[in-house]
Order: sequence, then structure tokens, then C-alpha cells
Amino acid sequence: MKKLFAEFFGTFWLVFGGCGSAIFASQIAAAENGQLGILLLGVSLAFGLTVLTMAYAVGHISGGHFNPAVSFGLLAGGRFSSKDLVPYIIAQCFGAIAAAAALYTINGGAGDGSAGSFATNFYDSAVYFGKSYSMMAAFLTEFLLTMFFLIIIMGATDKFANGKFAGIAIGLGLTLIHLISIPITNTSVNPARSLSQAVFVGGQALSQLWLFWVAPILGAVVGGLIYKFLLQSPQEE
Amino acid sequence: MKKLFAEFFGTFWLVFGGCGSAIFASQIAAAENGQLGILLLGVSLAFGLTVLTMAYAVGHISGGHFNPAVSFGLLAGGRFSSKDLVPYIIAQCFGAIAAAAALYTINGGAGDGSAGSFATNFYDSAVYFGKSYSMMAAFLTEFLLTMFFLIIIMGATDKFANGKFAGIAIGLGLTLIHLISIPITNTSVNPARSLSQAVFVGGQALSQLWLFWVAPILGAVVGGLIYKFLLQSPQEE
Amino acid sequence: MKKLFAEFFGTFWLVFGGCGSAIFASQIAAAENGQLGILLLGVSLAFGLTVLTMAYAVGHISGGHFNPAVSFGLLAGGRFSSKDLVPYIIAQCFGAIAAAAALYTINGGAGDGSAGSFATNFYDSAVYFGKSYSMMAAFLTEFLLTMFFLIIIMGATDKFANGKFAGIAIGLGLTLIHLISIPITNTSVNPARSLSQAVFVGGQALSQLWLFWVAPILGAVVGGLIYKFLLQSPQEE
Amino acid sequence: MKKLFAEFFGTFWLVFGGCGSAIFASQIAAAENGQLGILLLGVSLAFGLTVLTMAYAVGHISGGHFNPAVSFGLLAGGRFSSKDLVPYIIAQCFGAIAAAAALYTINGGAGDGSAGSFATNFYDSAVYFGKSYSMMAAFLTEFLLTMFFLIIIMGATDKFANGKFAGIAIGLGLTLIHLISIPITNTSVNPARSLSQAVFVGGQALSQLWLFWVAPILGAVVGGLIYKFLLQSPQEE
Repeated sequence: MKKLFAEFFGTFWLVFGGCGSAIFASQIAAAENGQLGILLLGVSLAFGLTVLTMAYAVGHISGGHFNPAVSFGLLAGGRFSSKDLVPYIIAQCFGAIAAAAALYTINGGAGDGSAGSFATNFYDSAVYFGKSYSMMAAFLTEFLLTMFFLIIIMGATDKFANGKFAGIAIGLGLTLIHLISIPITNTSVNPARSLSQAVFVGGQALSQLWLFWVAPILGAVVGGLIYKFLLQSPQEE
Repeated sequence: MKKLFAEFFGTFWLVFGGCGSAIFASQIAAAENGQLGILLLGVSLAFGLTVLTMAYAVGHISGGHFNPAVSFGLLAGGRFSSKDLVPYIIAQCFGAIAAAAALYTINGGAGDGSAGSFATNFYDSAVYFGKSYSMMAAFLTEFLLTMFFLIIIMGATDKFANGKFAGIAIGLGLTLIHLISIPITNTSVNPARSLSQAVFVGGQALSQLWLFWVAPILGAVVGGLIYKFLLQSPQEE
Repeated sequence: MKKLFAEFFGTFWLVFGGCGSAIFASQIAAAENGQLGILLLGVSLAFGLTVLTMAYAVGHISGGHFNPAVSFGLLAGGRFSSKDLVPYIIAQCFGAIAAAAALYTINGGAGDGSAGSFATNFYDSAVYFGKSYSMMAAFLTEFLLTMFFLIIIMGATDKFANGKFAGIAIGLGLTLIHLISIPITNTSVNPARSLSQAVFVGGQALSQLWLFWVAPILGAVVGGLIYKFLLQSPQEE
Repeated sequence: MKKLFAEFFGTFWLVFGGCGSAIFASQIAAAENGQLGILLLGVSLAFGLTVLTMAYAVGHISGGHFNPAVSFGLLAGGRFSSKDLVPYIIAQCFGAIAAAAALYTINGGAGDGSAGSFATNFYDSAVYFGKSYSMMAAFLTEFLLTMFFLIIIMGATDKFANGKFAGIAIGLGLTLIHLISIPITNTSVNPARSLSQAVFVGGQALSQLWLFWVAPILGAVVGGLIYKFLLQSPQEE
């Protein structure tokens, strides 16, 4: 049960911190001085730091997945038990949606009260960052990034690695993933994160949601298998 | 006594570095090139690094609270002795105010000498970052962020965690907190930090000061209790 | 064989993450608010984090070179076997080119589909960042930066150093190198990275490619020798 | 002798990386998109990373001072031998000036060849960042920041602290110091760094150089004494 609380609070923090920084702080116009906000760089850092902080805070309790794709990938890689899969994913989705509700409430307290500026994932949409990427480009991007995310997770927690640094490597790995791909899909690599925003925004965010479950989970499974069969040393089996 | 000196210097550094970077460096207009300053991203990093650096420098002396809300939260979580609470808070407030005095002096040495640009906390005010958040939104934000700050602190210093990394997780956790919430309240989560700026600026900063004591302390207590009862393993008690 | 897979995936990640962040995310125009992209600062961070993450993920497998110049430099410094040199470099170049192919595909899925905006290295060209640096300035820059990169790598992995932190020091060292020199040469210090972009762009990128093999390899060899003969303690030999 | 080489290369790297990033990369105008450079935030990060990387690379050889003020402060704090003081400072100044010569050469290879944009320290000058701070404000700033820098260094390397993290705490401490004070004095806290720029620029940089020797050294000595007498536990003596 403590494991599920850890996943709940960890995924809450991931969505509250990552999506929250995007919603509240990415763009702030400073009169005459140009942009004063944290930019996409700050949003990338925020997503990574949610995982870094929670990995050190509750990683020793639940393993620190905070992401259904990670749970699937670790299962494929032989590091996670199939009987925990569904409870973990439920806890993650509840945590993510609770965080989105908190963000929605705070956003509603702003002077203009527009709730539309949530941090949804998307493809084929030039509304957000001026350029539009096709469904295939978005799928490939989410697939590859989650695949490498799992290689990093499997490798950094390998018993022959410096496992105590895993929280830093994995957290900053998520920062790196966002540095690459926010302009392409607003970066998911995490189905619970995508779900949480879509349920409050609806419309296109819901109709495109399938991609942000399929591509990350598929990529995570492939990443877990790549590490297990191509990189892991035989003695570990 | 060394403990109180450690809290004094640590909280001095938190206010001098965090508020100082906001006051002196967040906005610098570079002719024709737009913003050259460190942005809210740099301010967020600065706040976090004050705690990261002092956690490794004097954390082994006092535990490295530098924040009355943290002291309350660790008391609630069973990690801090009630007899040290008042002396710690006094040392923290003195350190914060001394730092604000130093900032005030340096700021007074600037060509234009305007002392009004201090890093105060606020709600219901669109003066600073263009959007105004209600008192309830500000309260919820400060409450939740301090609650999670304590979960991170309690978890990262848990004896089953990689405790040596706690300074990194806690410091960068404070960076993350600022990445989310500077545009909402200018981010407190620390009553001593809010007090130190308010005593030099007065006016609205003083009349709104209550929120930046009540919300962080309440959030910290709840965070300490959540970790103790929902996440901490029974063997630790 | 696992070593070569590790170098393949590590160098893929370096090019996909480093060059990808430059291509997709460095410049995003936010209407009225100025720049919203990750800037050259975010690109610098991305390059460093590719190495930091892969160093902790697969460094225990292959040593984590991901760069032909590093392999040459470690050979000169007495830390790498000459019989592995050619296979490592081939794996690195294949990984880098595979990543460039993935970037090319994703970039082709963007609305405007312009493939010209790849992250090539250059000298004597004011097209990218407004100022043009001569071939000699570019050579000196690449030489010195790779030389210091090897001093950092040799030192941080020295048996008298805190070797477990090497991934942080080396990764953030690459970030630092980019912070200095993106405006000069778009920063190579890595022949495989330069090759991967040049094969897709051709033209000047190919005709100037020699410098980004010669200067980094020469610098790396000198850096390896400096550490071995001027800094390494005799007991290590 | 290896110690002096380590100080030479470490201080070279500090000036080459820190001042170099300021000179080459802080401001890049991206047509229509505003600033693309690394901003004062990137320069702050670069200075800190020079120390972080060299602390892990050669810290085990020389202790990793790279700064005459640090050597003075550690002497005052009882952690450094007076017979090494002068050789260390000479090696540091030579390293710093050699780096400035390299920067001067590279800068001379730029299309416009203006050598005036060096990273000098200053006070009472509104030329660089739009606001002018008085000599007293500059002195107080340099004094306080170097004082805290020494408290961080003394504390993080204390035998009761997590000494292996000292390179991170001290390096990122220097980043923090720059985040606060680049707009005030362009941040020195290091007499060798100030000297190296002044010898190539002359004029005001030379006539104001005294402050960037006196204030940092004085602050460092006071910081060393504060840690020794107010914070260090008696068992360590």
C-alpha cells in the first residue's frame, strides 16, 4: 500500500511541477525587456526535477516509476513484477489527475481565468510553437525518446552501475527528453501525464490521446528489451 | 550554539542569494538583443543553490533547515525536537533580516537608488508578472508546494534512502518549486524569507505577510504527517 | 560485442539529443513575448546530459566514450587498448549517422520540411550566429576544448579521484564546452557528431569536415599526454 | 610540482571557460526571435562548471583552489600551509593570464576583431548592464560573496561533511555567486581572474583592479575564520 501512495504522490508531483511550470511560468512578458519567463528550458528542467526529487524521496519505497510506460518497460526488462502492473498504473493515473485538478483550481484563480492553456500533448498542430509535425514524426519521436528513457533507467539501476546516482541520471534524462521534443509533441513519454491534461481540456487532446499511450508504451517495452538482451551482462540473469 | 550560527548563516545566504539574484539580475535589457538577465529560471536556480550549497556546508551542523516551515514540518514528522523550535526560528529570522539589510545597502548604492524593487511575496497583484492570482489560489499554491517540499525532505533524509544525495534533492526541489510559482506569489514556502523582505518594504508586503506564514507552515505540517503515516516504513519508528 | 552496442547507443543518444535539441527547440518565436526556445544554453545542457545519462547507463559496459577523439585521447593517456580503437570508432560513427537519419526523418515531418537546418559544424561562416571566426580561431578553439575535455576525463576517472562522480563531471564538462564555443564552430570536439550532420547536409559541411576530425583528435591526444606526464601520480603507472 | 601544474590548468580553465562564455556566447541576436545567447544565466553556469569539472579532475592533486582568495581563506581557516601560498598564487596568475591570451587570440580571429569586449570587472560603470553600482556597494558585494564562498568551501570539505560532494557544492556555489552579482561588478571573487582580463584591456580595468584583490581576499579570510571559530566542531582541531 505504501508503494501505491508513493506512486500517487510521485506522479502528482510530476504533473503538478512539470505541467504547472509550463502553464504558469513559461511565458511572462516583461515590458521593454522581452521574455522574463522560464522558457521551454525551465519547463524541461522542471519535469526532470520532479523525477529527480521524488526518486530520492520515495524511490526506496516504490522504485519510483511515476509513469505507466516505465512500469511496462521495466516489466519487459525483467525488473518489475506483472502482478503490480495494474495497481501501479491506477495509482499513477489517479495522482496525475488529482494534480491536474489542483492546477485547474489555481489557474481558475487567475484574473483572466482562462482554463484553455493546459499543457496538453499534440501532433499535427502549429498552434503552440509555430511549426506543425506530422503524426508519424510525433509517433517516432515519442517512441524513440521513451525507448532511450528505459535504456537509461535499466542501465543506471543495473547492479554493476553506480546505482546511487540513478535518480540524477534518470531525472536529468527526462529534462533532456523535454529539451529535444517540447516543440514537436509538447513531450509526453508518459501516458498518465497526457491523460491528466486531456480529461480537463477535452477535444483534440482526447482524440489524439491514443498516440501518447501507444508510442511511449511501445518504446518503453522495446527499450527494456534492448537493455536486457543487448547490453545487460549475462551474470545478472 | 553552533547550530544556531549555522541556521543564521544558512538563512542569510538563502535570502541574500535568492532574493538578491531576483533584485539585481533577473531583468537586464540588452539593447537590440532583448533580455540578457537570468530570467525567472535563474532566480529559481539561485534559490535552490543557496540550499544545496549550505546543506553540504553546514547541514552536518544544524540539519540545514533555513526555514521556519521546515522546522515545523520536521517536528510534525518526528525528526526534530520541540525544544529547538523557537531558537531555530529566531536564528532563521535574524539571518533573513540581516541579509535583507545587506541587499538594501547594496541596492542603495545603485545609480537610481530605488529601494522599492525588493523581492516581496504577494497575492491578488498583477503588478509584477502581468497576471493576478486570488488569495485562495495563492494559499493553495503555497500550501501544496510546502507540503511536497517536506515530503521530499523527509524522504530524502530517510534512513532507507540515499541520504548523501539529500542536499541535491532538497536544493533542486526548491528550484523546482520556484519554477512553478514565482508568477503566482513570487514563491515563499519560507516565512523567514517573506518576513525579511516585508520589513524593508512595508505596505502591502506587511499586510499580506500572514498568508506566507500560515500557508507554508500548515503545508509543511501536513507534508511531515503524510510522510510519517503514509510513506515511512514501520521499522523506522 | 556489448561494448560496441553501448558505444552505438551512446553516440546515437549524443547526436539525437544534442543536435536534436538544437534543430527542434533552440529557437521558438513567441508572439509579442520574444524568444521562448531553449537558447544556446539549453542546447549546451542537452549535449552534456546525453553524456551524463549514458555514462551512468552504459559507462560500466564500454567506458562511455561516444566520441572518436575521446578514444584516441584515452589511448594516448594509457587508459584504452589500441586493439579496440577501430571497432569503437566504427560503432560511434554508425550510431551518430543512425541518429542523424532519425533526426532527418522527424524534421521531414514538419510542416515546412526544410532539411537544411541541421546542426553542422563550421568556421569562417557568419550565417548562423552573426559573427564569423577564422579557420585558425576555430582550430585553436576545438583543439583547446578537446584537450581540456580529456584532462577532465582522465582526472575524474583517476583511481585517486572520486570516480563515481565522473559521469557528472564529464557530462557537465561537455555542457561547459558548448557554453563557450557554439557561436564559434557550433562546437564539435567530437568527429562522429560532425560527420553525422555533414553526410546529410553536404556542401560546406563536408568540405570543412577535416578540421573537426583533426583538431579534436590532436587536442585529445595532447590532453591525454598532459594528464599522464604532468598530473598523474607516479604510483598509478 | 604536480600541484602547481594542477593549479595552472585549473585556473586556465576557469578563465577560459568562464570569461570565454561571457565574451563569445552571452549575447547572440537571433533575427526576429530576440536573444538566442546563453544570457548571464549561462555565464554563471559556465563559471561554476569550470570549478566543478576541475575539482573532480585535479582536486585530488592540489586541493583545487584556482583562486588566490581561496588560498588565503583556507590559510586563515587552518586548512592550507603558508609555505605553499606564494607558489600557488603564482601558478594561478600564470594560468589565468595564459587563458586570457588564448581568448584574446580567438577573439582576434573574429570578423570584426574588436578586442575590447573582454570580461573585465568594474564598479561605478553603467556601460555594461545599464545600472551603475558605487564602489562601496561593489566592495560589500565582493566581500560578502567571497566570505560565503569560503564558508561553503570550508564546510563542504569538513571531515564531518559528505566530502565527496564538495566539488558539486563549491562549483554550483560559484554559479550562484555569479547569478547574484554579474550586473554589479561582473563578479570577481577571484583576483587572478580579474588580473587576467585587466592586463589585456588596461585603462579602467587596471585602475579598479585593486578592489578585486582586496575585497575578495579580505572576505575569504573572514569567511575562513568564521567557519573555524563559529561553525567547526572542536574535535576537528
